[in-house]
Amino acid sequence: MADNIGAQLAGKNILVTGGLGFIGSNLAHRLVSLGANVTLVDSMVPAYGGNPFNIHGIEDRVTVNIADVRDEYSMAYLVQGRDYIFNLAGQVSHIDSVEDPYTDLEINVRSQVSILEACRKKNRAVKIVYTSTRQLYGKPDYLPVDEKHLAHPIDTNGINKLAGELYHILYYNVYDIRAASLRLTNTYGPRQLVKHSRQGFIAWFVRQIVEGKEIQLFGGGGQIRDFNHVDDVVDALLLASVSDAANGEIFNLGGEPVSLKSLVELMIEINGGGSYRPVPFPPDKKRIDIGDFYGDFTKITNVLGWKPKTPLRDGMLDTINYYRENLPKYLDTES
Amino acid sequence: MADNIGAQLAGKNILVTGGLGFIGSNLAHRLVSLGANVTLVDSMVPAYGGNPFNIHGIEDRVTVNIADVRDEYSMAYLVQGRDYIFNLAGQVSHIDSVEDPYTDLEINVRSQVSILEACRKKNRAVKIVYTSTRQLYGKPDYLPVDEKHLAHPIDTNGINKLAGELYHILYYNVYDIRAASLRLTNTYGPRQLVKHSRQGFIAWFVRQIVEGKEIQLFGGGGQIRDFNHVDDVVDALLLASVSDAANGEIFNLGGEPVSLKSLVELMIEINGGGSYRPVPFPPDKKRIDIGDFYGDFTKITNVLGWKPKTPLRDGMLDTINYYRENLPKYLDTES
Repeated sequence: MADNIGAQLAGKNILVTGGLGFIGSNLAHRLVSLGANVTLVDSMVPAYGGNPFNIHGIEDRVTVNIADVRDEYSMAYLVQGRDYIFNLAGQVSHIDSVEDPYTDLEINVRSQVSILEACRKKNRAVKIVYTSTRQLYGKPDYLPVDEKHLAHPIDTNGINKLAGELYHILYYNVYDIRAASLRLTNTYGPRQLVKHSRQGFIAWFVRQIVEGKEIQLFGGGGQIRDFNHVDDVVDALLLASVSDAANGEIFNLGGEPVSLKSLVELMIEINGGGSYRPVPFPPDKKRIDIGDFYGDFTKITNVLGWKPKTPLRDGMLDTINYYRENLPKYLDTES
Repeated sequence: MADNIGAQLAGKNILVTGGLGFIGSNLAHRLVSLGANVTLVDSMVPAYGGNPFNIHGIEDRVTVNIADVRDEYSMAYLVQGRDYIFNLAGQVSHIDSVEDPYTDLEINVRSQVSILEACRKKNRAVKIVYTSTRQLYGKPDYLPVDEKHLAHPIDTNGINKLAGELYHILYYNVYDIRAASLRLTNTYGPRQLVKHSRQGFIAWFVRQIVEGKEIQLFGGGGQIRDFNHVDDVVDALLLASVSDAANGEIFNLGGEPVSLKSLVELMIEINGGGSYRPVPFPPDKKRIDIGDFYGDFTKITNVLGWKPKTPLRDGMLDTINYYRENLPKYLDTES
């Protein structure tokens, strides 16, 4: 990352929603190292990714504010006086979104409207970076999927994340509140939730590997995905924050396409042991299987100069090592 | 319309949400003439389009149920036992959606989820036709706009209508609840709200003409739009309802492109008098001006055999005549 990003963020007042979660806490570590004044907002919903251990080592250098983005008045207060908001809080579980569409709607849409409305009324000079998701594309019409690909989400979560993203772009276009959206693909790395498997498969695979358990590969593992190490995602978030060229724009992230089977074999190799077994898709998962997916990230390369820098092997080694050391901190059995 | 549509709908139990409004009531007249058992749900929100006079002549042949789509339990009860639901209720004012984004979100998204959830639990065999809007395309990237055009709405209402539409398609794909969505363009005709100008310009122009007032043309009237007479929209709704080829599909409606200035001149000619004046865009309207818009309706022509049949001249004559006769019934000053 260019030095000038550090210079631009040093001393700035920064709010991170979802700040005790996976990506939010990795971002917090980086922001602290750059000398920013960081406030982390997290609701600590038990089933979600917030974990106090995620800020181990920086706990005295950040402000933690426990609050839910659905709490309209608290959020309206907390957005004031910030130079940047990294708006990462979300309901991210596909499965939970199907079982309880209203909660997903409240968090991923209504709360986004209230954060944006609060900025409109109290902090129009702020810059917001929003984390969206490749899930909103649904089953790809073509590969790699660029930002011109139609959004036809195949789950509630994808619809709501799309709406939340469009609200950010709208508030830039109509009210000049600078905002950018990154459509994240499968992100992995330290500090990800592993206490259950409802928030994605990579961290769950990592846990199985570290615990010496057999990995189940739905559909055999031939499906292709792309992966970003969280450090690369943090790079993209920072670039989007300081660049005016990002205002009002939507960017895919993305990485090298790899089959799930190859990913798991790489993990087993790195770990020096492990096993997997192909299993049929459960009917409910089959119904919403999207086949292969990988994104085209040419736009963010051209506009912001971002490329993923962490090779999958290095990133997986880093991740497996992290959970080897810290797994118990992530096994809270509350949910 | 083909005779077989009448045969398929005769005797069927049909629910129309927004049934006392503009399109809902025109649909109701048609459904009654086809021999369907029609229940109309309307909330009679004062600023919206519901008007008891809209069912003048069929009031003894339909069931009217006053209820709001936000009323989850009532809706869950009302969807039961229906063969078809025409899901037309919505907050349709762009201006109101900007001033009160939460109400728009409640009506156009959350209520749609609860209607669909109710169908999933109580009436999975129903067929739903949803009315969406060309507004979700925002400012066109190209003309004519087909269904492959990206949705980048420039207002709250467009975002929420898009989400509501995507929910209908999702519930078909995941739960087999048959649903289709029509993206309506500018619809005009008898029974449209004219008591204020916040729900679109055509009906407002008609009122000015009938009242002998000068029409104000923002930006000079060079903007191109396409228009559908409500009878043609009713045709499309019925075709989508009885056709399995429509399940899970999204269709543009559309018509011949005409400039607003030409439209107004035609109206003045038909009326035998009237006047207009070009005025500059107010700044807030300029910001969200989409320039020219007209839709490509090839898909619905190919799949369902729909084409608009009412020439603009005939449709406008019909409309002006209707309001000449009935204007006082539409001038309730409550809002």
